[in-house]
Parts: sequence; structure tokens; C-alpha cells
Amino acid sequence: MLAETIKQVIRDVPDFPKPGIIFKDITPILLDAELTRKIVNDMAENYKDKCIDAIVGIESRGFWFGIMLANKLDIPFIPIRKKGKLPYKTMSYKYDLEYGTAEVEIHEDALQDNWNVLIHDDLLATGGTAIAAAELIKMQNANVAGFSFVVELDFLEGSKSLSKYSENISSLVHF
Amino acid sequence: MLAETIKQVIRDVPDFPKPGIIFKDITPILLDAELTRKIVNDMAENYKDKCIDAIVGIESRGFWFGIMLANKLDIPFIPIRKKGKLPYKTMSYKYDLEYGTAEVEIHEDALQDNWNVLIHDDLLATGGTAIAAAELIKMQNANVAGFSFVVELDFLEGSKSLSKYSENISSLVHF
Repeated sequence: MLAETIKQVIRDVPDFPKPGIIFKDITPILLDAELTRKIVNDMAENYKDKCIDAIVGIESRGFWFGIMLANKLDIPFIPIRKKGKLPYKTMSYKYDLEYGTAEVEIHEDALQDNWNVLIHDDLLATGGTAIAAAELIKMQNANVAGFSFVVELDFLEGSKSLSKYSENISSLVHF
Repeated sequence: MLAETIKQVIRDVPDFPKPGIIFKDITPILLDAELTRKIVNDMAENYKDKCIDAIVGIESRGFWFGIMLANKLDIPFIPIRKKGKLPYKTMSYKYDLEYGTAEVEIHEDALQDNWNVLIHDDLLATGGTAIAAAELIKMQNANVAGFSFVVELDFLEGSKSLSKYSENISSLVHF
């Protein structure tokens, strides 16, 4: 029911960021405060009994629902950002893209040892950035408690590559 | 009282993003869900009777409190992003930085005519980005209802340059 509503609100943008890709634009969801709240509540319901200590949200779209989910669960929110954006001392992880590489960072004192950390991003495609986030969590001696996405592109099979970090992979809508 | 707490939690990072600048790092606030909520509630209290129709949040740090404030006020949240990041058709505004220029964008259908729009960012420095946001709002035939920041650097006098758009400029803490 919620999934169907979300699917209707998400906007397909053809040829973004490059020709041949149909981008799933979630910004129309944010225009509807009630729908936004329902999504947060639904995600929180999934994880409220899972002893999650913190949410990591991936820049930039992962900040939107990530911080709200953390607040709903009453736990810390930690941003993972592109290289050079976080001001304090960081740990960083570099990974391959289709063309070239990307690098993401976390503040080196963001997580505490053995925290169970849930990774949030708006969308799961091939999973490269989510894996980078998982590696950063492990570098801080914390545990990957799971992955939470709004949208998952099933045909890219990103969840297969995430399952070695955690079996808890949840997405509200699948395309 | 709240302002004092926030000041204690904010971290000074010297020489970021370049030598001589002391960066005000608000990420430690996000580790404290209760403090985060208090900040959102305080901002919301300021604007709950001001007939605000939407919140515009400026990428990336303006997304954190921006989306929570919009949700608390039960109104739409609209992201303003750096050029090339928003997938759908956009309006853009270019402005001068100390060295070079920057350009920010908003989806062209994000705002409705005559909406009263509150601009949120984490920090007010010289005000260049906030002015760009105000110009984008005017380009969509909407009204700048005010500006809301967590931190304001008084010595840079950014609020002077914003006052021609709105006299409603509020910051929770001042340095």
C-alpha cells in the first residue's frame, strides 16, 4: 500500500545522469510531509527491535530520510560524505565506478566500538557506495547491522554484493 | 540555554576548508537525537504562526535540519543543490565566491506561485548561497518568507545582505 503510493510519487527522469539511464527522482516525495513521515515510520518499525545504535546516511540524498530515521529511533546520525567535505579528521574508502573511482569519508571519531550501525541511502543500484559505507563502519570497529533504502533497482542485483556484510537489507519499493 | 548547549557541542576545526578559517562543525550535534529534536522544535516554534508554505534546504548541510523542520511544520521540503545534481528540469543561479563562481539549482516545478518560502542552511557566513536561494525562489514567483540558520558568524555581516529579501533572519547561535 505504502509502496504503491511511493511508486506513484517517484518521478522517472530519462537520460540522467547520462544517456540510457532512467533516474528515480524521489524529491516529489519530500513535497508531501505526511508521506515522508509514513516512510520514516515504516523504516523505523523495521528496525526498532534490532538494537541499532546509529544510522549512517550517505551524502546527499541519504541525508533526507537518514536523519529523520535516526531521530525517530532516537539514536545518533552520522554523515558519510564525498572526499574533502568533512571538516575533522576522517577515514576514507576508495572504490571503483563504471568509469574512474570515487572516495567517501567518515569522521574518525564518529562511531564507537561495537556499535550496530544501519546504513541508509535513498537508492540501491549496484551497491558500490553502500559497500564503501560498510567498509568505513568496519574500519571503526563497529558492526554493519543492515541496509535501508527507499528504492531498490532489482535488476542491478546490488543486494547480492551487500549480503556479505549483513542479511538485513530492506527497501520500501522495488523496480 | 539551548544556544549555550549548541555552542558547547559544535566543534571548531581550524584551517578548514583553507588556512586561516575556523570551521564550525555541527556534525557532533547530530550524534545527540534529543538535542537535534530540541533545535528543530525551537526553529519550528519561531515559524509556526508565520504562514510558511515550504522550506528550502541548501545542499548538503542544510538538508539535515531543513527536512526535519519542514516535517515538524508539516509542509513541503525542497532541496537546492549544486549545478548538475538535480535530475529534472531546473532553474539555476550563478554567484561569485571569493575565488571563482558557484551555481545552484532548484527543480523548475518545485514551488507554487506566491508560496511563502523559508530558506534554511546550517550556517550564515557572508550570505552568498542564501542570496542565491532567495533569487531562485523569486524566479519561481514565490516569496522569501525568511531565513533560518543554526549558526551565524556575526563578524561577516551576512544578515545585512539578506535583509533586502526578508527581515525574518533567525540563527540559534551567534559567533
